[in-house]
Amino acid sequence: MTAIHSFFRSRWIEVPANVSEPHAGLPRGFRAAGVACGIKPSGGPDLGLLVSDVPQTSSAARFTRSGTQSAPVLLCRERCELAGIRAVVANSGNANAATGRPGYENAAEMQRAAALAGGVGSAGAVAVASTGVIGVPLPIDAVRRGIAEAGHALRHDGDADFAAAIRTTDAFAKHACLDVELEGGVVRLTAQAKGAGMISPGFATLLCFVQTDAALTPDTADLLLSVTVKRSFERVSVDGQLSTSDTVILQCSGESGVQVQPETEDELLFGEALDAVLRQLALYIVSDGEGARRVGRVVVRGGDDRAVHRVARAVADSPLVKTALYGGDPNWGRIVQAVGMAMPGTAPLEVDVTIEGTPVCARGQYVPHDTDALTAAVQSEEIEYEIELPGEGAETELFFSDLGHEYVTLNAEYAT
Amino acid sequence: MTAIHSFFRSRWIEVPANVSEPHAGLPRGFRAAGVACGIKPSGGPDLGLLVSDVPQTSSAARFTRSGTQSAPVLLCRERCELAGIRAVVANSGNANAATGRPGYENAAEMQRAAALAGGVGSAGAVAVASTGVIGVPLPIDAVRRGIAEAGHALRHDGDADFAAAIRTTDAFAKHACLDVELEGGVVRLTAQAKGAGMISPGFATLLCFVQTDAALTPDTADLLLSVTVKRSFERVSVDGQLSTSDTVILQCSGESGVQVQPETEDELLFGEALDAVLRQLALYIVSDGEGARRVGRVVVRGGDDRAVHRVARAVADSPLVKTALYGGDPNWGRIVQAVGMAMPGTAPLEVDVTIEGTPVCARGQYVPHDTDALTAAVQSEEIEYEIELPGEGAETELFFSDLGHEYVTLNAEYAT
Repeated sequence: MTAIHSFFRSRWIEVPANVSEPHAGLPRGFRAAGVACGIKPSGGPDLGLLVSDVPQTSSAARFTRSGTQSAPVLLCRERCELAGIRAVVANSGNANAATGRPGYENAAEMQRAAALAGGVGSAGAVAVASTGVIGVPLPIDAVRRGIAEAGHALRHDGDADFAAAIRTTDAFAKHACLDVELEGGVVRLTAQAKGAGMISPGFATLLCFVQTDAALTPDTADLLLSVTVKRSFERVSVDGQLSTSDTVILQCSGESGVQVQPETEDELLFGEALDAVLRQLALYIVSDGEGARRVGRVVVRGGDDRAVHRVARAVADSPLVKTALYGGDPNWGRIVQAVGMAMPGTAPLEVDVTIEGTPVCARGQYVPHDTDALTAAVQSEEIEYEIELPGEGAETELFFSDLGHEYVTLNAEYAT
Repeated sequence: MTAIHSFFRSRWIEVPANVSEPHAGLPRGFRAAGVACGIKPSGGPDLGLLVSDVPQTSSAARFTRSGTQSAPVLLCRERCELAGIRAVVANSGNANAATGRPGYENAAEMQRAAALAGGVGSAGAVAVASTGVIGVPLPIDAVRRGIAEAGHALRHDGDADFAAAIRTTDAFAKHACLDVELEGGVVRLTAQAKGAGMISPGFATLLCFVQTDAALTPDTADLLLSVTVKRSFERVSVDGQLSTSDTVILQCSGESGVQVQPETEDELLFGEALDAVLRQLALYIVSDGEGARRVGRVVVRGGDDRAVHRVARAVADSPLVKTALYGGDPNWGRIVQAVGMAMPGTAPLEVDVTIEGTPVCARGQYVPHDTDALTAAVQSEEIEYEIELPGEGAETELFFSDLGHEYVTLNAEYAT
């Protein structure tokens, strides 16, 4: 195993010692493909299929909490065996959301077609995901042809093609391929994610598909996915917008023969690797935040659980904080303002603010500091804000992108 | 009285029949001035003083609910006789927020200096307001000189100068001068407001000072201000950001001799005029929303009170909705997404969406419509979105600005 980590880029990720990056290839038991079926006007890849050939594959899934869920999300929740997902069919270019009963029927059609193309006996073993524009009927004939074509194109190293086929406004593809050394042996862990806009710290965000050839029971898969999603996708915000379509799926083929049993060292080791992968993918999504130049990390300590979460979110979602981040401006007054907005009725609030290690506000009052040095410190790609509230005990973090001209251009022109 | 209404511009304001616009001048009993004292690097006007010469002036006031309130807001709440405010001293260019005890002492110094300069016996009869950058010590010597100079410059038609002195990033001055015909006689109603960024539907937003020579008891003034602020400044959002400094003050000199008694026709007539003035000022603030090109009005009906407010705010504060408004794009999918985000756990939500009178979504599903005609309809300056939730009874509205390049430029470069 090599020690080169080209996937892990952020200083905010601790890379587990037992993880290495092979060149490519899905875990044993999985095949994938990505094709262009004509949903995207650009003619780019827009239909992905990913299949486990192992009947006893276990899985876990998380979906958006939105009240206006896309047809595929509604279908997965109603007609999918979520503990035994064998295949995933996903398209980009059309979210199949706000499409009513016809949209639901189209999602069911995708499910049936993918079961056939992937050689999976039961439609209920297929998860469906769609991302793209909302409120436009899905061109189901093109999708059906694409699924058939993808079925023929399935291969062991098709993960990059699959990742490419689920992109929308993403500036770059986001996928991981890792080997994880456990006590029971080496297992592979791969993941493909998409997401740049409509990203918020909700229940699950974006599309992210994770595969491993480790053997996990559905309960263990569910537990590990639950814990790691909370620490990754629920801790990022591009624009505070919960999507109609967010889906995260973990599939475990067991083909490595390595069992990950509950409450063992291997469960911990595997969980740490999964955690690092999802956190790095979440950070990629933030740094791709529709034109983002910089990523901020806000850490809030003190107060109570409710307060630290409200404050972190108020800071991360403030357009004033986000434009200052974009402008490379250490405008801490906007941090104080956002904190105050999240804590009504507490004035005068004795808040401390530190930016990139420099205290700028203590007990609600400015701290004299070298402004030029601080301005220089906020020109890098990752900026850290620390906030201390009165009281003690709680702590949270949230990663967020800036708000710049590219976001406006992209979103003012991304047509209906 | 003339029938020309140059102040009332929005189609969303019903102009009361008993209101007319004289050329200028404060209500009897009031004088004002605005000077440049050197707070703003530009050398522009930055210090305003407004005084009622009538000892028995009654008043009412509203302040931000923020946990990090500016020193002037804290001072007003602690050391001001809010039912008998005789004078207002306000500066722009510096918010005197996050300035701790020294900031509070500076605000008290402003209060004392203004009492002297305005010929008001008690410092407690002076309200103080500051707006501008947060976390920078106020240059109190310059402010003190400015207050003395403004004291000498006070005059009956100084309201425009006062309005100019409280501007920060405002692209235009916002002030009203109206005559209101009551059964008891004609009274004058004037107002000066500032605000473009850091605007949100909180308790009170921005700075707004209102004067009349009608005679109102403090209780009546408080009641009318409470009702009208709820229908105006609490129903606008530029960027969802509650400020540290929001202040609204109504002063009544009584010098017209016209009494506005509780539960009379005149209370209703005066209240309607005040309502129209504050709503139009609120709309001016939104349309000046730091580079705004268009103003949206979202009306939400159905559900319950909590639901309609959450939905209205989610739509108004969505950067995706705001960039679409900016781009002249009738991207109703983003409206549906924002509604879903505000209503977790309700999927599939049967929501109706209408844009500029065209139904685009019914019971959660797209409604075929003429996209070209709708796109043409969303190119004007005021765009209306109507949302119907399942159930009935509740209704609210919210006015919001778009999010465009000008907002980013202004806020990425508005230095600390």
